[in-house]
Amino acid sequence: MLPSLRWEEPPEGPVVVLLDQTRLPAEEVELVCTDVPALVRAIQTLAVRGAPLLGIAGAYGVALAAVRGYDVDEAAGLLAGARPTAVNLAYGVRRAAGAYRVALEKGEGREGAARAALAEARELHREDADASALMAGHGLGLLDELLPGGGHRILTHCNTGALVSGGEGTAFAVALEAHRAGRLRRLWVDETRPLLQGARLTAYEAARNGMPYTLLTDNAAGSLFAAGEVDAVLIGADRIAADGSVANKVGSYPLAVLARYHHVPFIVVAPTTTIDPRTPDGASIEVEQRAGHEVTELTAAPQVVASGMGPGVGGGLPVAPLGTQAYNPAFDVTPPELVTALVTELGVLSPVTGAGIAELCARSRQVTIS
Amino acid sequence: MLPSLRWEEPPEGPVVVLLDQTRLPAEEVELVCTDVPALVRAIQTLAVRGAPLLGIAGAYGVALAAVRGYDVDEAAGLLAGARPTAVNLAYGVRRAAGAYRVALEKGEGREGAARAALAEARELHREDADASALMAGHGLGLLDELLPGGGHRILTHCNTGALVSGGEGTAFAVALEAHRAGRLRRLWVDETRPLLQGARLTAYEAARNGMPYTLLTDNAAGSLFAAGEVDAVLIGADRIAADGSVANKVGSYPLAVLARYHHVPFIVVAPTTTIDPRTPDGASIEVEQRAGHEVTELTAAPQVVASGMGPGVGGGLPVAPLGTQAYNPAFDVTPPELVTALVTELGVLSPVTGAGIAELCARSRQVTIS
Repeated sequence: MLPSLRWEEPPEGPVVVLLDQTRLPAEEVELVCTDVPALVRAIQTLAVRGAPLLGIAGAYGVALAAVRGYDVDEAAGLLAGARPTAVNLAYGVRRAAGAYRVALEKGEGREGAARAALAEARELHREDADASALMAGHGLGLLDELLPGGGHRILTHCNTGALVSGGEGTAFAVALEAHRAGRLRRLWVDETRPLLQGARLTAYEAARNGMPYTLLTDNAAGSLFAAGEVDAVLIGADRIAADGSVANKVGSYPLAVLARYHHVPFIVVAPTTTIDPRTPDGASIEVEQRAGHEVTELTAAPQVVASGMGPGVGGGLPVAPLGTQAYNPAFDVTPPELVTALVTELGVLSPVTGAGIAELCARSRQVTIS
Repeated sequence: MLPSLRWEEPPEGPVVVLLDQTRLPAEEVELVCTDVPALVRAIQTLAVRGAPLLGIAGAYGVALAAVRGYDVDEAAGLLAGARPTAVNLAYGVRRAAGAYRVALEKGEGREGAARAALAEARELHREDADASALMAGHGLGLLDELLPGGGHRILTHCNTGALVSGGEGTAFAVALEAHRAGRLRRLWVDETRPLLQGARLTAYEAARNGMPYTLLTDNAAGSLFAAGEVDAVLIGADRIAADGSVANKVGSYPLAVLARYHHVPFIVVAPTTTIDPRTPDGASIEVEQRAGHEVTELTAAPQVVASGMGPGVGGGLPVAPLGTQAYNPAFDVTPPELVTALVTELGVLSPVTGAGIAELCARSRQVTIS
């Protein structure tokens, strides 16, 4: 499988190369970004997506501006604001921009500072891969503890595998670990409307890894719960507030309510970089509202919508009457009382409380600083 | 608006004319069925759909066979088995076939029996229109009682308007009645994957009627509940068991669980013909499993899938890797304890209990027999 993101230094100058996720699963095509505006476009059109990977992309974006001699502050601002909900994006930008600034202040000059920014992006990339492996281990341990019978039937939403990460991902990495240990009976994959990241990306990763998986429309999950076919829900997160509220792909919250009603564990898997201690609670999380044509038109590949080709407003096939308004939040917020456990690279937090989140943050910052 | 179904008698012989619902909202095209196999195909491809309308279609189908001199028993068998979950289909078939048989037994001959079958189909059609009007009135009365402030914000799923009925429908007819009374603030329309009856049909009917409506992906309903933007859920039903369990379009059950969690009324609107006293409970309801390509491929119009044209197995654009298995139940089952009220043409039943259902059945059969 192609890496979802890499830094390259061809003779023409450094570039950030992305696996274009909007073309999957039909085609494996790479996008080469030679400047920050191209990378921002790739982030906004979801060619590159997923909270941890957005952080890595943001950091390499700052490095790209620095190495190519563009205005680093301006680049950092553009990148951090490309999508509002994913806190990791701003975090990655801050790490690389911070390394750049510190190096400048130390008198290392623009070239030295650019090298420092790139080194910091690489370090973040490495940390994320390490975090994936740690989360996978902690997550499988938790599953085995909660479901001692084995033969796990896991429901997941959106895409949280290698495509969102420097490693094997978050929630998906736990399911993959269970599969490798011979303890995954079924991965239920929500298609994840409107952009179908489950159908297009998670099914692709599950097929690539030989996992037993079945796709379903998001609204069919209720029937699976009612039939006793779901042992646990595993999802990622785009932002976790200080009180433990979890912003994740729209459709996560209904799964949390269904899981609670059916006494099924609802587990969030995310690196501590997803925690934003400056967001006090769920109500304070800004939820990105996306264009209505993602709902009112169908496209096999979202980039067709983004580029504005084709018959509909957004370039897709209209499925609703012209002029139909759509409510299209990209995320929803699950309160901590519906989250059975939060799995991070530092271990498992259960129950999820503000105090527990604060402790995780303190430990995480220590690790980062050391 | 074109009628969703009508009987015509051109010189070439009688026909059943259907508004092809798979072509909406892009085109208003009528399908002319000259024989029962054509009508069965129209039922299976969802060109004609919706529980009450299926009953009417089944009855006219029997009349068509009778008037054209085909084998009425064979036609009745084909029609009743065209889709397994909608009890109204079998009910409509039974009504017309029963009238045919009684007339034959009375010595009215094949022609007289055919006239009797057609008269029965027309009677069922009229009854359904009357039932719609009664349900709309009872439903609005219930809403006004449950939500005395007015300004109702109603969430609905699938399509339950004039397209499913001899009249203005079931759940949708209640929302329309609220709109006409100036008391509908917003109709939230679930798109209803995989076949998008909400986006294609309910949005079309809402736009036609000038109602304030907003479309959403099914999985975004959770955010609306959490934000306090839903005052009531109104849905139809495809079959109601003797214990009050409700089979309806997949995605209804998760809404019932969300409504309960958020203390929002969950109201089922259906004529008493939807009640099947021979199905004792929810677990006994046979749920139709449909082809996986409805989930793994995208099409703007389902008939393209049904006819098998185009690149994918089902004729659509593949969105998941080839070979992906899908779980695709057409319906789910909501237990009576999650249903706040059942609105029928005979009035409002709340709470929904087996005894209440039995009483409704007894009154309904009296009305039918008289």
